[in-house]
Amino acid sequence: MDSFSIKFGPVGLETGCPAGSTILDCARRAGAEIVSVCGGKGTCGHCVVQVKAGRVSPVDDIEKKFINPRLLAAGYRLACRAKVLSDGEFYIPPQSLSTMQRLQVEGNEISVKPEPSINVYPVTISPPTLADVRADFERIQLALSAQGIKARVPEPSVARHLSAAMRNNGTLRLAMRGQEIIGALPGGRNPLGLAVDVGTTKIAVYLMDLITGKTLDVRGAANPQAEFGADIIARMAAAIHSSADALKIQRLISDTLNEAAAEMCARHGASREDIVEAVVVGNTAMHHLFLRLPVEQLALSPYVPSVSSAMDVRASDTGLDFAAGANLHLLPNIAGYVGADHVAMLLSIDILHQEGAVLAIDIGTNTEMCLSHEHRLMSLSCASGPAFEGAHISHGTRVIDGAIESLRISNGKVQYRTIGGKPPAGICGSGIIDTLAALVTNGVVDASGRMLEHSLVRDSNGVREFLIARGTGDSPDITFTQKDVRELQLAKGAIRTGIEVLLDENNLKEQDIDRVIIAGAFGTYIDVESAIDIGMFPAIPKDRFQQVGNAAGMGAKMALISGSKRSESRTIAEQVKYIELASHPDFNKIFTRSVRLGQAPVRRHYLI
Amino acid sequence: MDSFSIKFGPVGLETGCPAGSTILDCARRAGAEIVSVCGGKGTCGHCVVQVKAGRVSPVDDIEKKFINPRLLAAGYRLACRAKVLSDGEFYIPPQSLSTMQRLQVEGNEISVKPEPSINVYPVTISPPTLADVRADFERIQLALSAQGIKARVPEPSVARHLSAAMRNNGTLRLAMRGQEIIGALPGGRNPLGLAVDVGTTKIAVYLMDLITGKTLDVRGAANPQAEFGADIIARMAAAIHSSADALKIQRLISDTLNEAAAEMCARHGASREDIVEAVVVGNTAMHHLFLRLPVEQLALSPYVPSVSSAMDVRASDTGLDFAAGANLHLLPNIAGYVGADHVAMLLSIDILHQEGAVLAIDIGTNTEMCLSHEHRLMSLSCASGPAFEGAHISHGTRVIDGAIESLRISNGKVQYRTIGGKPPAGICGSGIIDTLAALVTNGVVDASGRMLEHSLVRDSNGVREFLIARGTGDSPDITFTQKDVRELQLAKGAIRTGIEVLLDENNLKEQDIDRVIIAGAFGTYIDVESAIDIGMFPAIPKDRFQQVGNAAGMGAKMALISGSKRSESRTIAEQVKYIELASHPDFNKIFTRSVRLGQAPVRRHYLI
Repeated sequence: MDSFSIKFGPVGLETGCPAGSTILDCARRAGAEIVSVCGGKGTCGHCVVQVKAGRVSPVDDIEKKFINPRLLAAGYRLACRAKVLSDGEFYIPPQSLSTMQRLQVEGNEISVKPEPSINVYPVTISPPTLADVRADFERIQLALSAQGIKARVPEPSVARHLSAAMRNNGTLRLAMRGQEIIGALPGGRNPLGLAVDVGTTKIAVYLMDLITGKTLDVRGAANPQAEFGADIIARMAAAIHSSADALKIQRLISDTLNEAAAEMCARHGASREDIVEAVVVGNTAMHHLFLRLPVEQLALSPYVPSVSSAMDVRASDTGLDFAAGANLHLLPNIAGYVGADHVAMLLSIDILHQEGAVLAIDIGTNTEMCLSHEHRLMSLSCASGPAFEGAHISHGTRVIDGAIESLRISNGKVQYRTIGGKPPAGICGSGIIDTLAALVTNGVVDASGRMLEHSLVRDSNGVREFLIARGTGDSPDITFTQKDVRELQLAKGAIRTGIEVLLDENNLKEQDIDRVIIAGAFGTYIDVESAIDIGMFPAIPKDRFQQVGNAAGMGAKMALISGSKRSESRTIAEQVKYIELASHPDFNKIFTRSVRLGQAPVRRHYLI
Repeated sequence: MDSFSIKFGPVGLETGCPAGSTILDCARRAGAEIVSVCGGKGTCGHCVVQVKAGRVSPVDDIEKKFINPRLLAAGYRLACRAKVLSDGEFYIPPQSLSTMQRLQVEGNEISVKPEPSINVYPVTISPPTLADVRADFERIQLALSAQGIKARVPEPSVARHLSAAMRNNGTLRLAMRGQEIIGALPGGRNPLGLAVDVGTTKIAVYLMDLITGKTLDVRGAANPQAEFGADIIARMAAAIHSSADALKIQRLISDTLNEAAAEMCARHGASREDIVEAVVVGNTAMHHLFLRLPVEQLALSPYVPSVSSAMDVRASDTGLDFAAGANLHLLPNIAGYVGADHVAMLLSIDILHQEGAVLAIDIGTNTEMCLSHEHRLMSLSCASGPAFEGAHISHGTRVIDGAIESLRISNGKVQYRTIGGKPPAGICGSGIIDTLAALVTNGVVDASGRMLEHSLVRDSNGVREFLIARGTGDSPDITFTQKDVRELQLAKGAIRTGIEVLLDENNLKEQDIDRVIIAGAFGTYIDVESAIDIGMFPAIPKDRFQQVGNAAGMGAKMALISGSKRSESRTIAEQVKYIELASHPDFNKIFTRSVRLGQAPVRRHYLI
């Protein structure tokens, strides 16, 4: 049977599939998790994808029922109905990605030429005899030197592995990093690598082919360190308090990565011993907790890292169970609150080669941003808090089915969309920004943040609140309160302060910004116009904004497969000038201005 | 009060001592364990030492009572009576060393110029502020680079230590090995090193000052791996059978070394964190078990090591708890049964610069020997068995109080000396050889090993035995049986076979041997003449023999304090041609000849 090569964007997965498979079958095989409420029966209409390349079966009646003619014309299809008839490429729109995968979506797959730091050499080893009693390693060294390759004396754990491998097989495929033997690859496969983005909340893990540079598979997982606290402060406190907990906090990550790696390797007929290198990025706290570096000095002002430089450590030292001598590379940190994930993000957007004034921003509990202006880089972090993750917001929620993800007020009526089309269960980040924007642009909330009297506003125990959806049965009404507005003002004010300080330090005005790159899971789903409406982002034309998804994960992948990119990440970290926002002389003045809602009307004409 | 500098040979220990201290006080302070049965009361006469340099108090009546005038004239004194009146140097004869220390005695302290691989740099680190939030390590790097010193990014365990040390102290004394930071030394002391000789039965541990090259202290300990079996085969079997046991077998050694190091450091006002480097030597099995290298292939023919090359590993990887980044150097092995201890022995006797034909030999369960002839080195190992350790000998014993350590037959009567002058408890190695030599030279045993009828021989259940001492009370008679003669023939035959093969391979006759160097604890105490009498050693003039004590430990010390010596050890291992005795074509013929007792009478005139 014919097998077609099928690619999925923006998740960056691919697979081979027999002719006649549905796109949904292909997606499952590739590990791309498409929302399919009915399980592929053609009754829910959720598994919409867009055909980017290749031939598929003709549109059928079920598809006509669920997809409007304009979208059908643009190549949108139901993944469970359309069958692949050739090699093809399909785009999975955000609403069709399952919840977990929405958190990991890649914005721009950047093409990077693989320059693996690993070489593979097949060597045939003659068995020892009483007349030739040279040691195992010396026999390997000899076989390698016959190919002109020098090998350093391995560490004991690698020697252990090599002696065992030699006795199973006379011919070894040795994976080497320079003169260092990493291990003997178990099968005939290419050496694999693992790129990892350890976020405070979630972890994204990518299995890469180091020779082709291709992403073979991806897994997302919740960060299990949450059992020690949702925020990094609680986790650092636990690690400071008990070195046993510090070890446990580390092993929670390595266990998660080992499991994800084993699962993905099994799907691709490989084993964890095929993984010869890993690159991990994360914020400085995640970085330090994963290496069990001390965090006392990181948890207290002035919040300094123990180590900022890029590090290469033995993967096994952190509990990772890959090839015997697998290397773990950690991208450099910049400061206590600007970590390796920021560097990875800057790497992925090619910051060193950006012309003009480019602002790159990754919104989270801490929001890191960098302004590149005439090739000078300046970064800072601002404490934007967890409001965008739904915390401290009356009906805030994380990204779950039923979360209100977008909202507007049209003709005095509230309109919203929930994830998966489920009954409303709360408001997630993008919905929260939309809600505040709708309140601001409809005059329900004034520039100072005060909620005014309005037909959509009611009083609840003396506090004003905006009614979004009435509860049904046991579930309460979903509202947005005066207090929620205040929380949001602090969050967006922190971010806007960061932007203003960067502009100020560079003698730029907001109109001078040529591009705003919004990275990170949260940034991918926010409505840029809403963010401008509330005054979080500067009022510049919308086409100057670009939402690039998990850019940190992309940067980790780039640093994994390419030595040049890895060295570029060091250059980025060296070139970034770090600004300590809290010690900026005009911080209070700028912050007071930045918490105000909306934009000066004069700026609105910039918007498209 | 004046403090004198007092040295003790051959144990290589020194100390400062107040004027008027007895030599025994000084010895205790230096860690030299002199036999003192009465506890320094002057009533036992055991603590005899020889004054080599310096002034001491006049000879008193008690000393005149215990020491004969000829020895008094030669500077022999009772350590408990003679008081030091100046800097001095004292020689402790074997019979005055306590049992444990007799096992570790140094033959020749060779003067080696210290060339430590470690440098110490004091650096002052400015504390971080909100205006200067650089990472801990980057601050150290900066302070070092102000002194023109580059530092590599440390591994996490070292970074952990440095961050803590910085917060205790603004000025750090950084111990560095090249660009690698080992740790911050806790006090104002010189960096220390540990040289270790791990024998199958016992472990010798030396604490060294890496800057002065001096031996600060020494400890001996039984090898605790004995719980897994007295011989290496049993221990390797345990390690093969269970990786948990393999780890335990490793940790038994590292725990012993940690304890010895802690004790010795405490005596010298230092801590284990002052130990920045260790050198360990041992036979190949001890080497592999300590690194948890695989031993399956070492335990079975053709007995190949996993790794022969010199290795540098993190001390902490083996369970050693020294400075955070302490390095552990392991000298190279040569073959499965010719290990790093053999290389260390050859290093200590300066084998590369020996002229003529020099035979170096370390007698044990396996006896390793090397013939250097015209700067070509050839080594082999022979399975001499445990007879010299008293095993399989009817009344054999290890070196314990009461062991018969020398014996002769004079005018038809048996004369013997026991360790500590105690009632006879058995026969230890040197006594076993003396006994057989006495039987051979007095015609009680013939060249074929048959015990003849003789006034000193009796029949016990049809087996002849030689009566050495009658038992008293419950203790049995101490005898030497026909079977004991046969055991000894196998042991001495194995050794002589090794010597003959080396001579044969070099086209030499025994008379051509210019020097025989006898290394190892056992070799130190044997009577060379007796060993010649039984035909174990070739019949060459006695002044060509030299007994050098624990040469392997000495080699470990040299490799620890001197980089040149360390690299010389690699050269030795590379230059040694290894001979596999079992596969030698003439093995059987030579062995049959070698088990015969005695020497051809014509050769006797060589003896002095």
